Amino acid sequence: MIRLIEDNDPSSFELLKALYPHSGKAFIIGITGSPGVGKSTLIDALIFEFRKLEMKVGVIAVDPTSPYSGGAILGDRLRMQRHATDDGVFIRSMASRGQKGGLSRATKDAAIVLDAMGHDIIIIETVGAGQGEFDIAHLAHSTGIVSIPGTGDGIQAVKAGILETGDIFIVNKSDKPDAEASVFQLDMMIGMRRPLEGGWTPKVLKTQALDGTGVEILAKTFLSHFDFMKKQGLMDQKRKKLEHLYFQSLLTDLTLEKILLFMNDSKVFREALNNIESRKTDPITAAQHVVNKICVLGSND
Amino acid sequence: MIRLIEDNDPSSFELLKALYPHSGKAFIIGITGSPGVGKSTLIDALIFEFRKLEMKVGVIAVDPTSPYSGGAILGDRLRMQRHATDDGVFIRSMASRGQKGGLSRATKDAAIVLDAMGHDIIIIETVGAGQGEFDIAHLAHSTGIVSIPGTGDGIQAVKAGILETGDIFIVNKSDKPDAEASVFQLDMMIGMRRPLEGGWTPKVLKTQALDGTGVEILAKTFLSHFDFMKKQGLMDQKRKKLEHLYFQSLLTDLTLEKILLFMNDSKVFREALNNIESRKTDPITAAQHVVNKICVLGSND
Repeated sequence: MIRLIEDNDPSSFELLKALYPHSGKAFIIGITGSPGVGKSTLIDALIFEFRKLEMKVGVIAVDPTSPYSGGAILGDRLRMQRHATDDGVFIRSMASRGQKGGLSRATKDAAIVLDAMGHDIIIIETVGAGQGEFDIAHLAHSTGIVSIPGTGDGIQAVKAGILETGDIFIVNKSDKPDAEASVFQLDMMIGMRRPLEGGWTPKVLKTQALDGTGVEILAKTFLSHFDFMKKQGLMDQKRKKLEHLYFQSLLTDLTLEKILLFMNDSKVFREALNNIESRKTDPITAAQHVVNKICVLGSND
Repeated sequence: MIRLIEDNDPSSFELLKALYPHSGKAFIIGITGSPGVGKSTLIDALIFEFRKLEMKVGVIAVDPTSPYSGGAILGDRLRMQRHATDDGVFIRSMASRGQKGGLSRATKDAAIVLDAMGHDIIIIETVGAGQGEFDIAHLAHSTGIVSIPGTGDGIQAVKAGILETGDIFIVNKSDKPDAEASVFQLDMMIGMRRPLEGGWTPKVLKTQALDGTGVEILAKTFLSHFDFMKKQGLMDQKRKKLEHLYFQSLLTDLTLEKILLFMNDSKVFREALNNIESRKTDPITAAQHVVNKICVLGSND
């Protein structure tokens, strides 16, 4: 089913429509951070903790930076291989190849499938945060930002615009010398944010994913964030917001699919391209002409 | 002018049309790499080298990861401040806020302005590479990938899919202990790529941006890549390819602008949203309905 989505199979829409009413129960966790901070190892350890609580776990490892090679993705999956024979765990990698509709929507589609399949927890792993097109905050109910000591996390977090995105900040490889300084810096920067009324105060936690230190507390903090949102009535609000964003991205994708496919095959398009190449016109004038010709507004009734 | 583009001012299209015929002479360099590798400092030193050759330099610092805060961008600009009084240098930062048309196109627009203004070299700085929506390879004639020693560059480069994008690999902060190992690893990974016939073999260079070590050689290597492409007839090919991509992105943006603006204001859209919220329909069915109603294919003549 997820492969059909990745391949943009025509039947995937019908399948998603059938599954959609069965989704909406899972808690979706986003795990993000720079390459090399140990996200895959951490998720491997998180799976272990959630399984101890007898929760079914689905993982979607997304690589928005790689339109090219799938090597690393294979590596990530191997790292989580010890769960391969566990029926309560489903792991799937997605790269930005193939999907016409963009990686963000394909990931959302995959999450709907895992949700409808009855997974209690869905973990979406991705590089970076707030990356324009692929924004984990548009997919997850709770987002964990992973960093490692001694890389100037605080400043880089602001630089990457992720301080506003994170619900839980995880300082991994916390056996490294600068761990305490990183925690202190993150705590301070979170303190400087204006707190939302009745809102969640982001937590800063230390982990050593390799030996599992701190991961039980991390798993429980995610679950307490979940409880907090449910009790404050924030969960319905968040679900509604994510659903609205999904609808918007579907509108964008379907519009582009319909118009651009037709456009790129059209006589108008080919003529415009010739005119650009022969410098008879500039690309802006040419694009305006093509869009005016081909893309018409329909009925509003 | 660039501010008008960023603000998506209606007049910016007309201005770009007027400027376009005067563009096409600049050599566009992309500088990319993870946060913290010293890109801004390196560019500051590169400006200095190109100025020694009496070339006019324009810099566009792009932050695709930050829809939120502009703090770091200010920092970057401050770092290059020593060139502020030099008439031959123009520095401009862009974040992903505001532009309806996407950061990639806004950056291309800005590059057209700087090109038409007579800059010989345009440097586009951005985080990461091959990042889905914002792909530096769609904007630059030559791309430098900056990394620092001891971060497992080689493997991370493959992981991030950047090995295929880089023309020059720069190991910055090369006074660090693992510098030689990083160079060796990158050289080896480049050696493993199948070389393109008559193509450029990517170079690996060491720099210390802070004191300028290796930056003169770097500047000259960029220029020799430029010469190489011109001599091999690759430059025209590349320009044509980038122009085609620009045209495509204009088509996408104009289509979405026209359709989505109308759509999001329409009765059909509001009804669909209500039906989703009341669970009368799923978002996929709703989106298909709205697109069918509103987005019509026009004439192909």
